[in-house]
Amino acid sequence: MARIGIIGATGMAGSALYKEAIERGHEVTALARNGAKTRQLLGPDASITEKDAFALSREDLAGFDVVVDAFATTPDKAYLHIDLAAKLIALLRETTSPRLVFITGAGSLMTGGDDHLLVEDMQRNPNMGAFISIPESQLKELEFLRGVDNVNWVSVSPGMTFQAGPKKTSLLGKDTLLQNTRGESLTSSGTMAVAILDEIEGPKHSQERFTAIDA
Amino acid sequence: MARIGIIGATGMAGSALYKEAIERGHEVTALARNGAKTRQLLGPDASITEKDAFALSREDLAGFDVVVDAFATTPDKAYLHIDLAAKLIALLRETTSPRLVFITGAGSLMTGGDDHLLVEDMQRNPNMGAFISIPESQLKELEFLRGVDNVNWVSVSPGMTFQAGPKKTSLLGKDTLLQNTRGESLTSSGTMAVAILDEIEGPKHSQERFTAIDA
Repeated sequence: MARIGIIGATGMAGSALYKEAIERGHEVTALARNGAKTRQLLGPDASITEKDAFALSREDLAGFDVVVDAFATTPDKAYLHIDLAAKLIALLRETTSPRLVFITGAGSLMTGGDDHLLVEDMQRNPNMGAFISIPESQLKELEFLRGVDNVNWVSVSPGMTFQAGPKKTSLLGKDTLLQNTRGESLTSSGTMAVAILDEIEGPKHSQERFTAIDA
Repeated sequence: MARIGIIGATGMAGSALYKEAIERGHEVTALARNGAKTRQLLGPDASITEKDAFALSREDLAGFDVVVDAFATTPDKAYLHIDLAAKLIALLRETTSPRLVFITGAGSLMTGGDDHLLVEDMQRNPNMGAFISIPESQLKELEFLRGVDNVNWVSVSPGMTFQAGPKKTSLLGKDTLLQNTRGESLTSSGTMAVAILDEIEGPKHSQERFTAIDA
């Protein structure tokens, strides 16, 4: 049983993670800006610490074995992905616990026979519009994390499409965008939750990113 | 006349900068952890805000036109260069003022006919020992800053040697390590102060790094 704090527990990824963690018997706390909204979503028994993620202190994190950053935001505030990661890292320098788990988008994965990043394809796609700032910021976030060698962190990227849905059998990889045998590159929020909880219960990655998709 | 805040005003770079800024008639405030020590060094008339740099708020910075990060630390805490830059950037997202000026080491400059970074030579130099963490962290700091497009920042790197001393005539460059006509690559703290004040009074660089050495 692990004590797990979740930032962004009301979001698509965070709420699936919360559910999976509770089902597995972990002691889960939602670190949420809006306690009432969070309680409405997670139920009357949920353990909630009402605090803006950017106001979290070292003491707020000290009681957890793992803190998952499942923060999500709008394209005009995409830089907050970077700033929150930098803040959490700064709070935990020179520690090994809590472990930090980040959900970093698919844009930072290699594709096309590993000759470029998926975000470069996205940048050429006119349909991305303002949303391009999200994968661009999550790439910067991962680049920042890759320079951090004195905090216990790991990050997980979904496939090309990341959407709400029940957990499926999964395929796991490291830095290359995965496809299943039907040519799909999709990660359901349930599959992401399983990938994160499996990694929490049996760590296989340290200070690196891995990826999970629906088989 | 600019309102200039200096983080690290008691250090080698910061104290030279403080002196040059006062001589030029700017309104200068030292943002310092230890007010008494800072007053002892800068004199009874110095304007001092006693606050740890990592506790600075958006409000603390709001009254300045420019904030210079001349923070210095020991090799075992070198990561604080990155964390402080990330903190200052996070405080000032989506603003154009105050302008942030960072002193980033020479390690991030190109050398050897622009085919590698100086820090790579330093990494091969056994005499660097634990001190390698400083240029490595300042490189990560600059890489982080280069991803920031919604804050008014600039950074300055010295030459190979950065040491206390009076200002000299200077040579300016951009991303390549400079040498003077005698083959020296040295920046005195006075020359660095002049380079920063000149840039504050007449901005020539935006969201990029430049370099200055003693001619």
